[in-house]
Amino acid sequence: MENLSTQELINGIKSGDKRLIGKAITLVESKKPEHRTQAEELLKEIMPLTGNSIRIGITGVPGAGKSTFIENFGKLLIEKGKKVAVLAIDPSSSLNKGSILGDKTRMEELAKEENAFIRPSPTSGFLGGVANTTFETMMICEAAGYDSILIETVGVGQSEVLVSDITDIFLFLKIIGGGDELQGIKRGIMEMVDVIFINKVEEDNIIKAKNTKVELLRALHFLPSKEHNWKVPVLLGSALKNKGLEEVYLKVDEFISLKLKNKTFEKVRQYQAEKRFDYWVQQYILQKTKEEKSVENFYELHKKNAAELKSNPSSEAKMFVEKLMNK
Amino acid sequence: MENLSTQELINGIKSGDKRLIGKAITLVESKKPEHRTQAEELLKEIMPLTGNSIRIGITGVPGAGKSTFIENFGKLLIEKGKKVAVLAIDPSSSLNKGSILGDKTRMEELAKEENAFIRPSPTSGFLGGVANTTFETMMICEAAGYDSILIETVGVGQSEVLVSDITDIFLFLKIIGGGDELQGIKRGIMEMVDVIFINKVEEDNIIKAKNTKVELLRALHFLPSKEHNWKVPVLLGSALKNKGLEEVYLKVDEFISLKLKNKTFEKVRQYQAEKRFDYWVQQYILQKTKEEKSVENFYELHKKNAAELKSNPSSEAKMFVEKLMNK
Repeated sequence: MENLSTQELINGIKSGDKRLIGKAITLVESKKPEHRTQAEELLKEIMPLTGNSIRIGITGVPGAGKSTFIENFGKLLIEKGKKVAVLAIDPSSSLNKGSILGDKTRMEELAKEENAFIRPSPTSGFLGGVANTTFETMMICEAAGYDSILIETVGVGQSEVLVSDITDIFLFLKIIGGGDELQGIKRGIMEMVDVIFINKVEEDNIIKAKNTKVELLRALHFLPSKEHNWKVPVLLGSALKNKGLEEVYLKVDEFISLKLKNKTFEKVRQYQAEKRFDYWVQQYILQKTKEEKSVENFYELHKKNAAELKSNPSSEAKMFVEKLMNK
Repeated sequence: MENLSTQELINGIKSGDKRLIGKAITLVESKKPEHRTQAEELLKEIMPLTGNSIRIGITGVPGAGKSTFIENFGKLLIEKGKKVAVLAIDPSSSLNKGSILGDKTRMEELAKEENAFIRPSPTSGFLGGVANTTFETMMICEAAGYDSILIETVGVGQSEVLVSDITDIFLFLKIIGGGDELQGIKRGIMEMVDVIFINKVEEDNIIKAKNTKVELLRALHFLPSKEHNWKVPVLLGSALKNKGLEEVYLKVDEFISLKLKNKTFEKVRQYQAEKRFDYWVQQYILQKTKEEKSVENFYELHKKNAAELKSNPSSEAKMFVEKLMNK
């Protein structure tokens, strides 16, 4: 990495220099101890500039049209005077434009907008299990003045939990169809969702779309009601044809206003900060463990026992941690 | 939980008592310190009885027919004289039969087989972020004599990484279609997959299925070749109609034989054990942190700073860990 001082990066963020914003993000994504020290300096400095955005999570099965939705919804937000940052929490997301066939660039038009910033997730995160730093990336974007953060994810499980842990509102993109499996929307996901958008609705499938809506509303009816009495709306439209996006915008606004009014907005953000804290405690303990020589020796010993399949990993880990804490 | 001694549970596992196997799994899933101590006793004792199974990961988008595949592939394995355990790594999987509409029981026939054991993942794991204990659940199943472990997952991201971290072979179930997004099979996933099965192939879509196969083979061609020169096969069939499952069985067998022959089988398992060790180190450190009073005080202090949004979570976490390690 190019050797930039913390102050240079902070100045770059404040002035909205996209290249330097990118460099700052690469810094906070790094796991190297020297980078982490600088990253913490930077995050501490920009902290007062953060928190002033609306953080919007977006999910849906592959093929639900997330890229197109983000492209056109992002453009709508810009028209409304917002600055939009697009991040992905899952490197298999369309932001990484990693489809095997047809490597066409996604969100081309949005990417051209001055008031848009698009950042795919670190690809190493996928197989390598790098620290998930989307929250810290978001902080940088907020400090740079982006007030609408769109966080894309794909999948129907763990990654949604990660998204809901760092966002204020969660949109679910749905395509028409359903039947028994409802395209994998399980109870857990439905409970996290705040707004549902049925995408790709055209004249020739409007009846089906309405049926899907009825099914969804029925399903939602069986869920425990949200704490602030929010009724999850099911909207119909076509992201490609810019239909229904204004309604999504209004519902997002309404939801956030409600949360602000009844104080859940701040309460949830505080709770999220606590979870982030626990996450980083684990990350830093692991880092320290690998650094300290005295600790490292018995760390390696117990790890070796596990690796040689002589003993089970969790028992070896327990023994190591007991030694570590009693030293 | 019913108060059973470690020895009672171990005897239950050894004698194949499904009720007691279930209780032992519930024990290793628990995060309570007293349960963890007993869990480690149990895992240590059964360790010599583990490792003798083939661990098969199975993924595919919702609707790819994973339940039906596992039902009929599981029955095939039993016919071949195997004992089959079915686990899920992601609680949104079909094993939890949590679809919102139509709560029909999955894998009914397989569940009735004496030589089958089906265990959904702990539902609390989904939203609560409980320790992922599928590996330890697998150990218990192996000690109970199950020699074919099928691990189901849903999603196109993180959960596949978790599965590939604990299995010997990874099957990908594909349905016909594709086009641009190829149903979300991104580079990361494709690199993990060992065998692809195109499901739901019927007479009226055989041409499409063959085209999908060609597309997949072309896509695979662009990937770096697997270390042991394994050519990922793309098989066609219908799990519902028991077509093509024998071929899957043979390919699994061939792949495992190859891995055993060139020693990657054991090497990968050792590497997996190291990763499990690191995972549990983190879990136990967190547990200890919450237990020790002297540590707990400044843990709470730094967490509070993060929660009040005065300071960023990662900086507070770093300060806490530095105090912890230097006390």
